[in-house]
Amino acid sequence: MRDVLLVAYRSRGDAVELARTATLDLEATGVSVETRFIEDGASDPVSSSTLVVSLGGDGTFLRAARLAHEADAEILGVNLGRVGFLLSLPPELLNSEIRRAIGGELPIENRVALRVTSIDGTIDVFCLNEVVVERSHIGHMVRVRTYIDGDEFLTYSADGVMVATATGSTGYNFSAGGPVISPDLGVLVLTPIAPHFTIDRSIVVGSNQPIRLETIDGDGAIVADGMLVGQLGAGDSIEVTNDPRGVKVIVTEQLGLGSRLRQSLREGHA
Amino acid sequence: MRDVLLVAYRSRGDAVELARTATLDLEATGVSVETRFIEDGASDPVSSSTLVVSLGGDGTFLRAARLAHEADAEILGVNLGRVGFLLSLPPELLNSEIRRAIGGELPIENRVALRVTSIDGTIDVFCLNEVVVERSHIGHMVRVRTYIDGDEFLTYSADGVMVATATGSTGYNFSAGGPVISPDLGVLVLTPIAPHFTIDRSIVVGSNQPIRLETIDGDGAIVADGMLVGQLGAGDSIEVTNDPRGVKVIVTEQLGLGSRLRQSLREGHA
Amino acid sequence: MRDVLLVAYRSRGDAVELARTATLDLEATGVSVETRFIEDGASDPVSSSTLVVSLGGDGTFLRAARLAHEADAEILGVNLGRVGFLLSLPPELLNSEIRRAIGGELPIENRVALRVTSIDGTIDVFCLNEVVVERSHIGHMVRVRTYIDGDEFLTYSADGVMVATATGSTGYNFSAGGPVISPDLGVLVLTPIAPHFTIDRSIVVGSNQPIRLETIDGDGAIVADGMLVGQLGAGDSIEVTNDPRGVKVIVTEQLGLGSRLRQSLREGHA
Amino acid sequence: MRDVLLVAYRSRGDAVELARTATLDLEATGVSVETRFIEDGASDPVSSSTLVVSLGGDGTFLRAARLAHEADAEILGVNLGRVGFLLSLPPELLNSEIRRAIGGELPIENRVALRVTSIDGTIDVFCLNEVVVERSHIGHMVRVRTYIDGDEFLTYSADGVMVATATGSTGYNFSAGGPVISPDLGVLVLTPIAPHFTIDRSIVVGSNQPIRLETIDGDGAIVADGMLVGQLGAGDSIEVTNDPRGVKVIVTEQLGLGSRLRQSLREGHA
Repeated sequence: MRDVLLVAYRSRGDAVELARTATLDLEATGVSVETRFIEDGASDPVSSSTLVVSLGGDGTFLRAARLAHEADAEILGVNLGRVGFLLSLPPELLNSEIRRAIGGELPIENRVALRVTSIDGTIDVFCLNEVVVERSHIGHMVRVRTYIDGDEFLTYSADGVMVATATGSTGYNFSAGGPVISPDLGVLVLTPIAPHFTIDRSIVVGSNQPIRLETIDGDGAIVADGMLVGQLGAGDSIEVTNDPRGVKVIVTEQLGLGSRLRQSLREGHA
Repeated sequence: MRDVLLVAYRSRGDAVELARTATLDLEATGVSVETRFIEDGASDPVSSSTLVVSLGGDGTFLRAARLAHEADAEILGVNLGRVGFLLSLPPELLNSEIRRAIGGELPIENRVALRVTSIDGTIDVFCLNEVVVERSHIGHMVRVRTYIDGDEFLTYSADGVMVATATGSTGYNFSAGGPVISPDLGVLVLTPIAPHFTIDRSIVVGSNQPIRLETIDGDGAIVADGMLVGQLGAGDSIEVTNDPRGVKVIVTEQLGLGSRLRQSLREGHA
Repeated sequence: MRDVLLVAYRSRGDAVELARTATLDLEATGVSVETRFIEDGASDPVSSSTLVVSLGGDGTFLRAARLAHEADAEILGVNLGRVGFLLSLPPELLNSEIRRAIGGELPIENRVALRVTSIDGTIDVFCLNEVVVERSHIGHMVRVRTYIDGDEFLTYSADGVMVATATGSTGYNFSAGGPVISPDLGVLVLTPIAPHFTIDRSIVVGSNQPIRLETIDGDGAIVADGMLVGQLGAGDSIEVTNDPRGVKVIVTEQLGLGSRLRQSLREGHA
Repeated sequence: MRDVLLVAYRSRGDAVELARTATLDLEATGVSVETRFIEDGASDPVSSSTLVVSLGGDGTFLRAARLAHEADAEILGVNLGRVGFLLSLPPELLNSEIRRAIGGELPIENRVALRVTSIDGTIDVFCLNEVVVERSHIGHMVRVRTYIDGDEFLTYSADGVMVATATGSTGYNFSAGGPVISPDLGVLVLTPIAPHFTIDRSIVVGSNQPIRLETIDGDGAIVADGMLVGQLGAGDSIEVTNDPRGVKVIVTEQLGLGSRLRQSLREGHA
């Protein structure tokens, strides 16, 4: 029998309550359930057979996806978000869907993710939506030189420069003016945020074409899926590639691509 | 020995003169050369072993590419254009490059192209850059309902709706606000032109996800690579897929992807 | 007693029927009513004391506004449009509102309009929303050199280049990417449509700063408020200024500026 | 005889050296010169007859403009900037231009500026380019409800929402997608920065139509001309109006409006 790991923010009352009732309900049927709160930070590794369940909004899902990804476990998202980013299951269906997921009755979709590394090895993070190199001082732009597949491309003065996945294309990438990408495409999207007097259009490259972002003339903050994961000094850089292993997302609703993209544009997830 | 087919506009003096001198020069070395003028319209099929050489700008190249595509022949572009769309060889290198191309010394790149069909079979055209369904009356918008992979997506009121290839992404697609696509990606880009109160962002889908464009409430003109190829009445539609066979473009300059995209943004070709 | 001129498209059944019943109703109360159909073309001038009433959508209103402007008469718009551009009065309130308008009980707003002239005097037209110099051949761009206040500005290769008023800012200007302008501002907005590799941002200039649009390298069509009004050959130009006399629009609903702009963004009129 | 106040960053060697040699040169001709370094912070008020001279780039000019504005003194900008924002005088002409400015031989242009206030009176700042309410936490958007002329307009989830002047229109406003405004127009431009699923178009309103920006659901930083000037908690707001007194900028080069806007687009200043 597969274990269930519920992931939630402790500060979020509705998620905590949902975790409590789901635990009672599932344990009554013999399922072993653990709840992990994001605020508690690092913790024991998860088994690859564990079913990771995200209870919350987009932020919760992106953090739970990180746990699932580390363990190569499957993830199911339960949408408690205001806007409903990334998630599709209403809470009332939670227990029955968890049982269907445990029973392997729901299809799995492999979502392409990114791996972000620095040359000195101090940065090595995964992200599902996007990584941004952004200004770290109020009122200043960051200057970012970009390289595609090892070859110099444009240099931007901007609020930031991001690399997004198809999954992330309807998130921050969309806000910054980027295109929507069909969720099954393993491409990388390079999108500048409020660039000054440079071409502001996104560039879409293949999964085998790594993108390097290098700060020049000053610092930059590295933000992966909305979390600060490091700093770049002048001349430092990160390399962004497709993660060899994506994220196994359990699909609770089967939609055609047109409907799915239309829904993404309404709700902000791909 | 491979034959050479020079393609040019008769109205273009520099191209006609270049064709004349190249013919003399090449025939002196035993190569069989024919010149075909675009204004002369339909003509005998080309052999697949023929080397098609476009002498002109973007318009010439797109028409020569059609000839090459029909015959599955290779194409070499000689840039006489003002802006240098799509083409990279300066005319002074023409004869030496043609000889290298005949000798198989230059690499070939397969460019993804589009096939545009109507259900009633009256439309069946190839294009390398983009196909547009656009308004056919001055001062009116066209209303286009779109379907992705058979599933209804958005309906646009716009000057037009286009589907572009990676090759075409830096052409009309770019003017209309679309992203730049790495030339080796076999994706389709759906971009509306001046859409009224709809999402104006481009959608990038995979090569196996056909896009259907249907006019509602009125007519639309079908324009493929800048040429009018048909009309749609209310309720009619075209389907756009990747052409199973692309275009074999001879590459005269080897650039890294970053440099190549940077050059595309300056010159307007991918 | 002021006369009423109802303006409608003869091809539009609902408008014709509404004109018929309104005429009966108003003439029963002693008002003199005439109906003029747009398809019938040029006709007798209107008196400045006539109340012009547009029965239809945006297209009808823009044509009725031209009649009202010529006569310096007031105009009331009755919205039968699908999207509701420019118009705000539901038909059921028509007769009572016409009576209030005749009685001078409704406020008048003066909308800034444009005057478009050519140097040779062959073009001299008024428009309320926008004037566009656009490509006149399918698949080709038009090249337009622009001058602001007599001084050369940018040259665009584009589908077209427009100059819009505040009233037109939420129409075609918005579709082409232009900003929304508060309806009381007498500014001109220069917006290119799908420009190729030029700055695509709009330029806002003052009412005393005429804009000149000159076609180079080929033809352009002059389209004012959606109607073809002339052609420009290579080197020809039009000059766009604020019309010294605007259009007197009768206001049936008093909204604050925030609500009004918000409504404009939903409905497409300012 | 008018005094001269040179304003510079002490950390900037070229500006410090220029100030030293200009002081020697000007004092030799009987002009009284003082140098003030921006790092030294608050200082004695300036007399309205003082000629304020900014030695540096955009940041220096915006700070010097603040000093000049407080005193209602005239300002002359000397461009040492990399990109040349806002400034137009090359350093070698400095001394002769300062003498012409002292002698009243150069024209003065009054630039519209903004006044930013909070209801509780704790914020009351001037800015020449723009004020932004922006996110104060990495990875989170700020939610900003906007009011135009007292009337509720749109609510944005975004990196920030700005109000810019015509002078600032080619700065951060342009980077964020806003239009270019003719420098003599006293309008306010509302432009969201990377807004999520809202209309991303700028709104241009008149000088008599104040804009209110209110943070909801969390904090926002208030950044005026690139400097942090305050924080907004949930439900707090600032009001942005035209400053009744603008900034008196000395013009060293007379350009037509077209040339001037074209130069702005190259250099980033209006």
